[in-house]
Amino acid sequence: MENLKKYLVEFIGTFFLVFTISATALWGGEGVIAPLAIGFALMIMVYAGGYVSGGHYNPAVSLAAAIRGALEWKQWIFYALFQILGGVVAALAATKLPAAAAVTSGGCFDIVNVIVAEFLFTFALCYVVLQTATSPKTEGNSYYGLAIGSTVMVGAFAVGGICLGAFNPAVALSAIVFGGACVKTVLITIGANLVGGALAALVYKFVND
Amino acid sequence: MENLKKYLVEFIGTFFLVFTISATALWGGEGVIAPLAIGFALMIMVYAGGYVSGGHYNPAVSLAAAIRGALEWKQWIFYALFQILGGVVAALAATKLPAAAAVTSGGCFDIVNVIVAEFLFTFALCYVVLQTATSPKTEGNSYYGLAIGSTVMVGAFAVGGICLGAFNPAVALSAIVFGGACVKTVLITIGANLVGGALAALVYKFVND
Amino acid sequence: MENLKKYLVEFIGTFFLVFTISATALWGGEGVIAPLAIGFALMIMVYAGGYVSGGHYNPAVSLAAAIRGALEWKQWIFYALFQILGGVVAALAATKLPAAAAVTSGGCFDIVNVIVAEFLFTFALCYVVLQTATSPKTEGNSYYGLAIGSTVMVGAFAVGGICLGAFNPAVALSAIVFGGACVKTVLITIGANLVGGALAALVYKFVND
Amino acid sequence: MENLKKYLVEFIGTFFLVFTISATALWGGEGVIAPLAIGFALMIMVYAGGYVSGGHYNPAVSLAAAIRGALEWKQWIFYALFQILGGVVAALAATKLPAAAAVTSGGCFDIVNVIVAEFLFTFALCYVVLQTATSPKTEGNSYYGLAIGSTVMVGAFAVGGICLGAFNPAVALSAIVFGGACVKTVLITIGANLVGGALAALVYKFVND
Repeated sequence: MENLKKYLVEFIGTFFLVFTISATALWGGEGVIAPLAIGFALMIMVYAGGYVSGGHYNPAVSLAAAIRGALEWKQWIFYALFQILGGVVAALAATKLPAAAAVTSGGCFDIVNVIVAEFLFTFALCYVVLQTATSPKTEGNSYYGLAIGSTVMVGAFAVGGICLGAFNPAVALSAIVFGGACVKTVLITIGANLVGGALAALVYKFVND
Repeated sequence: MENLKKYLVEFIGTFFLVFTISATALWGGEGVIAPLAIGFALMIMVYAGGYVSGGHYNPAVSLAAAIRGALEWKQWIFYALFQILGGVVAALAATKLPAAAAVTSGGCFDIVNVIVAEFLFTFALCYVVLQTATSPKTEGNSYYGLAIGSTVMVGAFAVGGICLGAFNPAVALSAIVFGGACVKTVLITIGANLVGGALAALVYKFVND
Repeated sequence: MENLKKYLVEFIGTFFLVFTISATALWGGEGVIAPLAIGFALMIMVYAGGYVSGGHYNPAVSLAAAIRGALEWKQWIFYALFQILGGVVAALAATKLPAAAAVTSGGCFDIVNVIVAEFLFTFALCYVVLQTATSPKTEGNSYYGLAIGSTVMVGAFAVGGICLGAFNPAVALSAIVFGGACVKTVLITIGANLVGGALAALVYKFVND
Repeated sequence: MENLKKYLVEFIGTFFLVFTISATALWGGEGVIAPLAIGFALMIMVYAGGYVSGGHYNPAVSLAAAIRGALEWKQWIFYALFQILGGVVAALAATKLPAAAAVTSGGCFDIVNVIVAEFLFTFALCYVVLQTATSPKTEGNSYYGLAIGSTVMVGAFAVGGICLGAFNPAVALSAIVFGGACVKTVLITIGANLVGGALAALVYKFVND
């Protein structure tokens, strides 16, 4: 069971790393965006999962950790498998989202995009908040604000072009006041945000049980 | 009274998060600016208010915190209300500022813009300084410099196009030496800076009483 | 004498803040450069000088600190004076550098530019290193690497267009290997780097005596 | 032997600093990329090597440290020599990589580029992970996630244009799913990643023995 917690954390971290890589390649674009988004995606997942699994998200890092003596050799293959699984699932998920048809008429976004993207990054945000700012195992750290803020930045880089990029019901509601956002999109966003937050809490409870 | 402190901190944090989102959408612009500004806006407010209210600024995060046991369930509705209130007020404030007529003849900025924008972000800067660098509850942290410097960066992204973006009387005075800034704008800036700093100190005293 | 140390630190910090503002306005340029450079300039100086003077560099911050009780009221006027002095000197210095004639024939940079710019930011770099990574008063902090790396980034933004932007004799020498840098510029750079480092050590010794 | 560890760390740090400078100049490009990459390259190496050698990577910083009393005077010349050596080797290495012929037909990258670039930055990544997240001498720090994430960002800036920029076998495999990456390039990447990780573990063991 303790091992399963580690594998889950490695799966989640590698998923978001590779999803960010794929998304910035598909919709992100020029210059600094992809390197910034990718570097900070890794950073937030290292801070969120480091105390559980080491936060490798990378078979080469796990190899180095095994040689150094920070990971049992028999764990290396499982780490690598869950890392590769997380990466492949993320790449498949990103390629299935309809990036081309992102914005439909009336300022509404594609429904599938909104559900998936707002869910994923609100999950990531709440997972990072709970792991870095409420866990007794990371108490007293100085990185929680950087990790939390950066998660929203990474989400905005990765999926800001295919959804509201709110990851936050208060932001979604403000978008109606501010700029005539499509009400249907806002309501779906709020639902996806709350479900993402709830799932993150369940994952936190499982990992820290 | 203790609860009121938390609601005030949640209101302030969500206000600056949504004001930054609205402002970068209205005057900010391309590429990395909005994601960088938004991510760091959240970061500074998490560092500034985390020890008071948890620094959620997001009903989905508050929901996750309640499920995890880090927030009383009966508080969730109040948190969400003050977060939404902060967001809506910010969106209204941003849309009322005359962005189009930002710079008038002679290098002067619109007076309302200067007063509001220089006040808001000098308030944010001094609030962040006092909360992260002078509070006994955050003593010994390593993030105060990152939070303080980032506040000026966020302010420059959010309102740098509609005012001097000084948030600092010494910078405002230097702008006269350096580039022929409009003297009226500089004087109004200095006044707004000092009022913002004073109000931040009063808020600090209330929150930490 | 203790007060003089504080005033010196406030002068240095405000100098580099305003020099960076002026320089990025004169030679820096578009989009994110100025806000990034300015925010990180403030950050490095807050980390470098915080334990000596509070690291305000801003009369509005000093006012907030006085109201909050973190600065004696009678110190406020001196803080403000040295902050304004630092800002005005920086603005004057930046406007005197020959930005237009930055690169002369043969890939050499203007001699005055090289001396001033390489001296200033190597001083800043070594000052930040000594204050954040070797002072007993900041021992065990987690920000020293961020502060040190960011100083070179700020220097590259501020004066990268008017000198090699090395702030480092090893980098300057490598530039000959790498890209045919003008030997005269490299030699002047190395001299300015070493003088900047030596002066930073003397300032450190005075401040920490 | 203790001195040799310090010289090795100074060599490695200055190598990656100057390699990043050279690479962003050759293939990186516009605006913020070079300053961001260079500043963060220095940051990661300061965090990785600081507890061993002080993390200077700069003869001017070593001079300042010697005057301040944080480095023995007789060490200064050795520090400077290894720093210059690291810089010159890095500049030579960067100029030898075939940047112009980076991408060959079929989406494959130049083999030498892939081997060198993926090896170098996976080595850097694993070196940073082991030094900041597994060493007893840096336990409890708050910077490990920032250092680790930034290493991938620096690598993406420095060599993202001449190889996959994976530094991670799971990412390399995902690239096949995601975007039809050349299988030969992916296989060579994975090999270079694992060799880089293994060497980093050996260097860690030598330095921390």
